[in-house]
Amino acid sequence: MARAVLGSLCLCWALGRAAPPNLLLLLMDDMGWGDLGAFGEPSKETPNLDQMASEGMLFMDFYTANPLCSPSRAALLTGRLPVRNGFYTTNGHARNAYTPQDIVGGIPDSELLLPELLKKAGYVNKIIGKWHLGHRPQFHPLKHGFDEWFGSPNCHFGPYDNKAVPNIPVYRDWEMIGRYYEDFKIDLKTGEANLTQIYLQEALDFISRQQASQQPFFLYWAIDATHAPVYASKHFLGSSQRGLYGDAVREIDDSIGKILKHLQKLGISENTFVFFTSDNGAALISAPKQGGSNGRFLCGKQTTFEGGMREPAIAWWPGHIPAGGVSHQLGNVMDLFTTSLSLAGLQPPSDRQIDGIDLLPAILQGKLIDRSIFYYRGNEMMAVRVGLYKAHYWTWSNSWEEYSKGIDFCPGQNVSGVTTHTQEEHTTLPLLFHLGRDPGEKYPLSTPDGEAKTFAFG
Amino acid sequence: MARAVLGSLCLCWALGRAAPPNLLLLLMDDMGWGDLGAFGEPSKETPNLDQMASEGMLFMDFYTANPLCSPSRAALLTGRLPVRNGFYTTNGHARNAYTPQDIVGGIPDSELLLPELLKKAGYVNKIIGKWHLGHRPQFHPLKHGFDEWFGSPNCHFGPYDNKAVPNIPVYRDWEMIGRYYEDFKIDLKTGEANLTQIYLQEALDFISRQQASQQPFFLYWAIDATHAPVYASKHFLGSSQRGLYGDAVREIDDSIGKILKHLQKLGISENTFVFFTSDNGAALISAPKQGGSNGRFLCGKQTTFEGGMREPAIAWWPGHIPAGGVSHQLGNVMDLFTTSLSLAGLQPPSDRQIDGIDLLPAILQGKLIDRSIFYYRGNEMMAVRVGLYKAHYWTWSNSWEEYSKGIDFCPGQNVSGVTTHTQEEHTTLPLLFHLGRDPGEKYPLSTPDGEAKTFAFG
Repeated sequence: MARAVLGSLCLCWALGRAAPPNLLLLLMDDMGWGDLGAFGEPSKETPNLDQMASEGMLFMDFYTANPLCSPSRAALLTGRLPVRNGFYTTNGHARNAYTPQDIVGGIPDSELLLPELLKKAGYVNKIIGKWHLGHRPQFHPLKHGFDEWFGSPNCHFGPYDNKAVPNIPVYRDWEMIGRYYEDFKIDLKTGEANLTQIYLQEALDFISRQQASQQPFFLYWAIDATHAPVYASKHFLGSSQRGLYGDAVREIDDSIGKILKHLQKLGISENTFVFFTSDNGAALISAPKQGGSNGRFLCGKQTTFEGGMREPAIAWWPGHIPAGGVSHQLGNVMDLFTTSLSLAGLQPPSDRQIDGIDLLPAILQGKLIDRSIFYYRGNEMMAVRVGLYKAHYWTWSNSWEEYSKGIDFCPGQNVSGVTTHTQEEHTTLPLLFHLGRDPGEKYPLSTPDGEAKTFAFG
Repeated sequence: MARAVLGSLCLCWALGRAAPPNLLLLLMDDMGWGDLGAFGEPSKETPNLDQMASEGMLFMDFYTANPLCSPSRAALLTGRLPVRNGFYTTNGHARNAYTPQDIVGGIPDSELLLPELLKKAGYVNKIIGKWHLGHRPQFHPLKHGFDEWFGSPNCHFGPYDNKAVPNIPVYRDWEMIGRYYEDFKIDLKTGEANLTQIYLQEALDFISRQQASQQPFFLYWAIDATHAPVYASKHFLGSSQRGLYGDAVREIDDSIGKILKHLQKLGISENTFVFFTSDNGAALISAPKQGGSNGRFLCGKQTTFEGGMREPAIAWWPGHIPAGGVSHQLGNVMDLFTTSLSLAGLQPPSDRQIDGIDLLPAILQGKLIDRSIFYYRGNEMMAVRVGLYKAHYWTWSNSWEEYSKGIDFCPGQNVSGVTTHTQEEHTTLPLLFHLGRDPGEKYPLSTPDGEAKTFAFG
């Protein structure tokens, strides 16, 4: 620790300020708000994350910028809504920008990513896990500010050894070192894969190296064991009440416990800002065997109901963040961009619109910052949250065509006129909910009682 | 404390054992599993109960014996299922024994209630709040083992000053001292009532008196602010994100914090076993303004789905129960009968079937006791839970007739073939769920995959 602080102090002395902290972002894949014990998962199998919450700050009202992997991650790393950073499509109304491995696009060069900016403050940046912002050479993470990469450009899903289409590759820095299902095994029958253990070791090694190198680091730990097909290593298989999905969660929980203990052992926990969250709501289309839980919230991934976009979130920074805090600050993954810059002593770019806000006043001083949450689905702003009110301008779960094939974004849930299978427009009279009294979006506020009439955005 | 311990020691010395602890049972009314921050309520407005959980033991799998007030309370105080203690009806199949104020029945004299038995160990017993085991003279709580009573024989609901039918009376011991809406005001328009403050003061006074009297006490604090029409005192009105229901919860949370602090201040917290739970699931027919939350569980009060019968539960006993414990012991309100007797050093009656078990091995030693949960609705055993499996022998939410009038026990939820509006029998092939993978009872296990076939009760 002494050396790490000294290193960053050396850099910062020139700037006349204290050493910036290391930044560790633990980003989950398709994990839902309801998947943690601290958020009411009945099996309560996440002791390490629950302890992280009790030592740090729990965010009850934290959101993603889009209910799908790629646009959510692009928003996080650029601090901008997908409709600004390009991760949306006009191919269909309210169609999320899905990025399979045969997509040709990716993150534009014109976008400034968090690691690019952190370099100015001397940070060494590493991404472990899923990039998902384009797989062509020009989109490579090392071309966008990261110094190191261990992981893959896309999810670990199919084609599963289809002879015509190659499996998803795995990279170490510039080099492709293998492919999923070939060099990096995932047993689709048993769900066994030791990938989380590999990602854990990568994180521990990087942290140890950086602690010795005297430069601050940004580690983006974007693991994907909870994305279907879910997996866990042998030791964790069968360890959960919840089946294979729960096994994956238990292994992640255990790994995060080890990472936090590693920071403490190295003496750098008080100089490392850690944030845990997920990219979008649980994929209920894969539940219960391959998908998680959004607790009592409506629907899941792909939708702009709370289940699709409200995320579990924990901030942890011993000695700085008071233990056991609970925040109702409306937060967004885009805020991690601006907040990280603020921690590094940097200003966000002034030549473009940044949608993320600096959460430090909420995290360190318990303030509530006035801001709204915009719920985008592809190119359409479907809903807005202001305070405890949420107004839906469009409602849609999925199409009748998909639904008739058994694809259900809201299994077991059916709110008449809300979980619609046709795109319903409410732009002239938005469908209003009070998320305090009705977090499950089951009781639209009717205008005759005056509640909607007296509500004004602003 | 010195005196209180001394007092009970005096009694117990003769028996050659340590002083039995005081027993404090905090029983909520229609509060749901999902209403506490510790169980994932998004507003996280129960800091005192959450702290109670972090200092004690949280039960994730705790149940009531019947999803309605009267039979649940009868089961708790007798340690027996309602079909044994008489709190059921054969007027209709699977009809819960509803006990309005014009009912003529009540708890039979032949039943042995917990306070009657505790007297043998020298306990002084008080009930504060709702009795609900019959309002005729022969059913009076002071005829069934309680030494003191402050509260009412029934809920604080209607007839609301109907000229022909009197309002529900409020008693102090043998004497009727007034009536709801007359002497004990509840403003149905604003929801203002200071009843919880009165019940709090009654509890604090009784505890202080008992601490001075050197006799162990059993205090049954059966308050009802979360039963519709819900109420809160002026100080708490508008204090919750959740509306009036949340205001009631906040006031209860605050009151429980004060009671626990009072025990600590008097120095008797280590000699007082405290248990918090609720009588049945949240009344979703009254939600969201007058009803609570069952989290991600299916349906609510009146039903035998998890939302109707799984209860929030916390055990607290500093110096005895390890802090921060989480138990997956299958528990039931009937166990509070047997466990309380065990704490008092008494055996349960041997002349009758007792359904409650002694939870002390689970609470004090973290053991898992093998037991099943039976889900009764009136005279019918609708379902059984063994381990993580739940088998429905009958499924039913409510009748089409009720449903068509807008009475909905499962608002926003619809699981095909499960939340049925006709009584569906599955006794030849029970409808199976795995509550670990599927706590929301959304995915019946189909027999073809073999899971049901290989599952045997026992």
